[in-house]
Amino acid sequence: MKQIVASVLICISITANAQKSSNNSLLQYAKPIIGTQRMGHTYPGATVPFGMVQLSPETDTLSYELNSKYNPDIYKYCAGYQYDDKTIVGFTHTHFSGTGHSDLGDFLIMPTIGPLKLNPGTADKPRSGYRSAYSHKSEVSKPGYYKVKLDDYNITAELTTSTRVGFHQYTFPKSDSAHIILDMMYGIYNYPDKNVWTYLRVINDTLIVGYRQTSGWARMRTLYFAMAFSKPFYQHGFANYSKPEVYRGFWGKLNQSINFPEIAGKNIRAHFDFKTREGEKIKIKFALSSVSMDGALNNMHKEIPGWDFEKVKNKGQQMWEKELSKIVIQGNKDTKENFYTAMYHAMINPTIYMDVDTQYKGLDQNIHKANDFTNYTTFSLWDTHRALHPLFNIIEPERNCDMIKSMLAHFDQSPEHMLPIWSNSANENWCMSGYHSVSVIADAVIKGNAQFDVNKALDACVTTANHHNYQGIGYYIDMGYIPSDKDDNAVSSTLEYAYDDWCIAQIANKLGRTEIYNEFIKRSQNYHNVYDSISGFMRPRLSDGTFRKDFDPLTTINQGFIEGNAWNYTLYVPHDPVGLIKLMGGDNRFISYMDSLFTMDLPDKYFAETEDITRDGIMGNYVHGNEPSHHIAYLYDWTNKPWKTQERVRTIMKKMYKPFPDGLCGNDDAGQMSAWYIFSALGFYPVAPASDQYAIGSPIVDHAIIYLNNGRTFTIDVKKQSAENIYIQRVLLNGKPLKSFFISHEDIVDGGELTYYMGAKHL
Amino acid sequence: MKQIVASVLICISITANAQKSSNNSLLQYAKPIIGTQRMGHTYPGATVPFGMVQLSPETDTLSYELNSKYNPDIYKYCAGYQYDDKTIVGFTHTHFSGTGHSDLGDFLIMPTIGPLKLNPGTADKPRSGYRSAYSHKSEVSKPGYYKVKLDDYNITAELTTSTRVGFHQYTFPKSDSAHIILDMMYGIYNYPDKNVWTYLRVINDTLIVGYRQTSGWARMRTLYFAMAFSKPFYQHGFANYSKPEVYRGFWGKLNQSINFPEIAGKNIRAHFDFKTREGEKIKIKFALSSVSMDGALNNMHKEIPGWDFEKVKNKGQQMWEKELSKIVIQGNKDTKENFYTAMYHAMINPTIYMDVDTQYKGLDQNIHKANDFTNYTTFSLWDTHRALHPLFNIIEPERNCDMIKSMLAHFDQSPEHMLPIWSNSANENWCMSGYHSVSVIADAVIKGNAQFDVNKALDACVTTANHHNYQGIGYYIDMGYIPSDKDDNAVSSTLEYAYDDWCIAQIANKLGRTEIYNEFIKRSQNYHNVYDSISGFMRPRLSDGTFRKDFDPLTTINQGFIEGNAWNYTLYVPHDPVGLIKLMGGDNRFISYMDSLFTMDLPDKYFAETEDITRDGIMGNYVHGNEPSHHIAYLYDWTNKPWKTQERVRTIMKKMYKPFPDGLCGNDDAGQMSAWYIFSALGFYPVAPASDQYAIGSPIVDHAIIYLNNGRTFTIDVKKQSAENIYIQRVLLNGKPLKSFFISHEDIVDGGELTYYMGAKHL
Repeated sequence: MKQIVASVLICISITANAQKSSNNSLLQYAKPIIGTQRMGHTYPGATVPFGMVQLSPETDTLSYELNSKYNPDIYKYCAGYQYDDKTIVGFTHTHFSGTGHSDLGDFLIMPTIGPLKLNPGTADKPRSGYRSAYSHKSEVSKPGYYKVKLDDYNITAELTTSTRVGFHQYTFPKSDSAHIILDMMYGIYNYPDKNVWTYLRVINDTLIVGYRQTSGWARMRTLYFAMAFSKPFYQHGFANYSKPEVYRGFWGKLNQSINFPEIAGKNIRAHFDFKTREGEKIKIKFALSSVSMDGALNNMHKEIPGWDFEKVKNKGQQMWEKELSKIVIQGNKDTKENFYTAMYHAMINPTIYMDVDTQYKGLDQNIHKANDFTNYTTFSLWDTHRALHPLFNIIEPERNCDMIKSMLAHFDQSPEHMLPIWSNSANENWCMSGYHSVSVIADAVIKGNAQFDVNKALDACVTTANHHNYQGIGYYIDMGYIPSDKDDNAVSSTLEYAYDDWCIAQIANKLGRTEIYNEFIKRSQNYHNVYDSISGFMRPRLSDGTFRKDFDPLTTINQGFIEGNAWNYTLYVPHDPVGLIKLMGGDNRFISYMDSLFTMDLPDKYFAETEDITRDGIMGNYVHGNEPSHHIAYLYDWTNKPWKTQERVRTIMKKMYKPFPDGLCGNDDAGQMSAWYIFSALGFYPVAPASDQYAIGSPIVDHAIIYLNNGRTFTIDVKKQSAENIYIQRVLLNGKPLKSFFISHEDIVDGGELTYYMGAKHL
Repeated sequence: MKQIVASVLICISITANAQKSSNNSLLQYAKPIIGTQRMGHTYPGATVPFGMVQLSPETDTLSYELNSKYNPDIYKYCAGYQYDDKTIVGFTHTHFSGTGHSDLGDFLIMPTIGPLKLNPGTADKPRSGYRSAYSHKSEVSKPGYYKVKLDDYNITAELTTSTRVGFHQYTFPKSDSAHIILDMMYGIYNYPDKNVWTYLRVINDTLIVGYRQTSGWARMRTLYFAMAFSKPFYQHGFANYSKPEVYRGFWGKLNQSINFPEIAGKNIRAHFDFKTREGEKIKIKFALSSVSMDGALNNMHKEIPGWDFEKVKNKGQQMWEKELSKIVIQGNKDTKENFYTAMYHAMINPTIYMDVDTQYKGLDQNIHKANDFTNYTTFSLWDTHRALHPLFNIIEPERNCDMIKSMLAHFDQSPEHMLPIWSNSANENWCMSGYHSVSVIADAVIKGNAQFDVNKALDACVTTANHHNYQGIGYYIDMGYIPSDKDDNAVSSTLEYAYDDWCIAQIANKLGRTEIYNEFIKRSQNYHNVYDSISGFMRPRLSDGTFRKDFDPLTTINQGFIEGNAWNYTLYVPHDPVGLIKLMGGDNRFISYMDSLFTMDLPDKYFAETEDITRDGIMGNYVHGNEPSHHIAYLYDWTNKPWKTQERVRTIMKKMYKPFPDGLCGNDDAGQMSAWYIFSALGFYPVAPASDQYAIGSPIVDHAIIYLNNGRTFTIDVKKQSAENIYIQRVLLNGKPLKSFFISHEDIVDGGELTYYMGAKHL
């Protein structure tokens, strides 16, 4: 206990003194820049934990030109920034972290001096527009703070945020011609006609409001803003690139050429002009709301009443310090950087979607009040149900409950009467497959973290799972599998539904609702129905019951799977590894299959098909860069060779998580890739969320304390851990040897100590 | 007093018994069909007084086709309906009454049977689409009620409304294939891309919600709806004519072909399918809101909880009876029909723009609550400040105050810090010229009907009038006139501002704010600055102070005037006829000018230029179909030949107001044309709103009682009035001879009796 108390004190001290003594701060290890190169799709800018504002630089205008067609290269720019780019276009207020599709990038701000340029220009033609060269040398990217020098203008840009307000600070040189550009045309994944409508109103010489309405990945999204300058501009102007409107004659009565108070249209830009002294700082507070311009203004006034940039930055960083300090680890520098960057990336999504007055726009496009919870959006559930929400059930149980309440509100507001699949700003993307909300709900229920109406939640799960019209569910219910001649993702969806159904059964069991339990526990065995014992793979099956002849278990294309091939998806039975192993012929055959997966030589042509990941994201034919495989390395724990789990997870951690801009092997996927690392680094992983069980892997930390919100701590002590000592020799839980390679959630939340003894040889 | 009491009793009796005894009802005289042929731009459908819903048939799809260019013929269809058309396309829920530009026409409903057609088809190809032939024989158009037989389908359509809810009743033949079509693409003045976004959600088999967002005459207007069926449809479907959207792949997971619960896009139509028995009625309640779909639903539940069509119709007609009964006249049938149709048309606009819970969308695009007033929109002030609002100051003083409060709220929400010019559904159209809100405010102040903060209102007037950036005001302030080389409407705006400034001076005078009074009473004399004593006309004047050489006082094109030529506009000094007559050379020269105006032979080429009116709308060169001349006939009252006023106004009433579909000589202009008739029929007219003075004309009624809201009555008794006896022999006010041809507002609101003695010869 002495050690625990001491650690608590250290933790408190760290939080309080984060700014004074950076040596003690965990902030120093969290590097938002990790993942910004290549496939990570993270962003380097500023946000607070789960913040509604994500204020970050943009380096792309590929998808920018009017009337251009969809450019597949814009995929690189899901988070707006690519480390290898040489110019910054500006700074926008909303970003997804780590996604493989995208949206957002709202309200681009760019400070410039000299002749006014209202077009961004192109990266290959320096000074062709308002964008600026920059260098990573001048770049500072920390949780809650981003800084960069805009070389073309000798302007230093600094960014920080509160939950709903972005705070810009631009240090100008002396200039009689300084500009702040607000570009309402820019957006991420900004294909033609994505802007449905935009509006901008200049209330006075320091205050602007407006909104942007888009139809992109979110079909109908409106984001309102309020923008305040620390210094009055002396003039302002607009440019309207919209098609001329037929019936706007009488507006000609007003001279709109300069200093006109408002503009509306699909494609508008604005500039606000200043005269600056050498080193003069112009600050901007930029507040968002899903409800109204008034709502944004209120958010601004409530969250950042003054103009103290350092104060806002410190407050944001303290919020981060508090979150990072929920798990205090010891380990080498790389491990700490990987770990706290993962913690940082894990606590960005889902994002708060609610004004300070608790109003928010619902999926039904009406304005609601969140009476007893904080409303969240950005649920990338196909990804995050696997490890991120289970992680929240340990270190963020209250937020996780609010997230589930948000999901239940989404259900109530859903025209389709479905729990969220991918919730994007009062819209349903329907992205990816399954109905994995049920996993998040069940995991919370099983882990005793269900401060919501569980019966109602179960009803929502059942309604969702019985939606005949949704991606093959009707076939699945009627036939026990989805015929591959009826649906493109027939096999992976069958497998995912089977897992999800098992989750529903767990809730029903807990509530004693036997009929539902019986129905769904039966459905959870449907994975058997797509297993072909001849080929030994989960395989596309036709309506007539036969397996499809045209079948290549290595390809991900047109085989009935999404983001994975048959080799990987065959192992996707997280809720019943015992049954799966039996189905696949027992321990030895299963281990042999697993070994082949991790070690086979995947021909390049198959890699080229694999979405969202770099070559590093593959080990043999095991694809870590996409989620369906995340539990796989832990499946050896159900065999007689659990040491292979230890070996594999250490290799994955070593090869696929590096503390560099290109350190992520695939999309971080709203924190799921990071959550995998956090669990794995601590030495255990939730193979089947909605069970209370964690499978033991091979910890890479030397020591860790998890600070639980019940006031207890769970300490992980790893003896003799090193790059060579990756094998577990024995594990003690509260001093007693573990009888299996599993611990329970109760073991953790009860508090206590898990002691690993590591060695270079496996048992 | 006996007579007054008796009349009150009659009035109460009429209101109470309107439905029982149509003989006593005034409703029978109000014919919404008047003005629906040619230029009146009225509509025949159902609305309640000042209602937010105007449910009326559409006969046009000229402006309908996607990607078509602006078709100038759509001008005919400002109100959606032209009497000469042979087909009805459907019924929509919003219409302007009598305007010369247009918008609205939201949410077209059409019942059909047989094979489903989702395109409207064209009028020249019968049965090419869902539109239907109809005949005026089957058409019933009454205040609050419209009925027509849709001949192609043998469906009887009936329409009525409450304030915010349209109520449809369709009587079907027996059919296994009956449809209700909801066309979200249709709109009035529906040029390409007017639809910014539309959305529709099927909540269950009797309830739909959605919205339509347009950028038309109103730059950014969103109207929400809730739609309930009296009978469940057995299936529904959508058609989406929008351009395919780039990023909507995952929606393909849901089978949207039939019975899908929602659709969004720019161009969508829906159908709801039924099986009907012979004579089966399907009813639809269709509620509107500017706030939200929830708001629309709440409006529906509060205003029409049940399904009793007759009850709603009776309630609406009682509301009309109450309004019409505010002035009870005696006269011949034509006079009664003209008069009560004018009363009907006068009490449609402005329209209520607020939910039952007092929420409404403001000009600032935020949602507001109208705490102590009813919020109105549809202020066509260039038209209605002249006689409609003065009429309201007599018979609708409370509503008029609320209208002014709505105007002041508009001011508070205005980015340009201006009182409304033309308020259109939380938008400013800027239509026409002047800043005539100030006239409405001043008229209410002077007439003692100012239950609002008058000092604040004056400040708003002054701010509006000093908006240098607005249509030449800067020049006007600096130079005393607007140079015609600087503004297209330089002369008419100078004249209108001079009148408006006089209005502001009246308020300032009343409040004792001397500086403002001095400033604006001086400005009110600016009309002198555009009078050219050589030509004898108000004439375009250049920046250098000289009058423009290129000048044709007969043309309305490019002469510095809007909707009027120099001949008419020269007389536009309503606030200072004495000064004008002096300026123009005294009584005789003025009378001679007036006589020429009324009797000259206007060459056809000049008529062709005149907007918005029929040939009947012109007498000589006097243009009654447009508003700038409305006071002119009364100007003889300031000369020694007031009998000429009597002669002219009788001729205008006789020639330009007829109780037939083509009975209006020009656009009714949101009630102004009608208000002119109401006053003139009673024998007096407010030449200068904001004075307390009415000029005497020649009454066409035999008797009238105005029921004032202070409980008093003002009785007009006309002795020996006939088509020949148009000249006033003498006038008694409360038994005492009038000393001049003017009465005051006080004379009216004090109650009393005005007795005209008419004869065939003028005095």
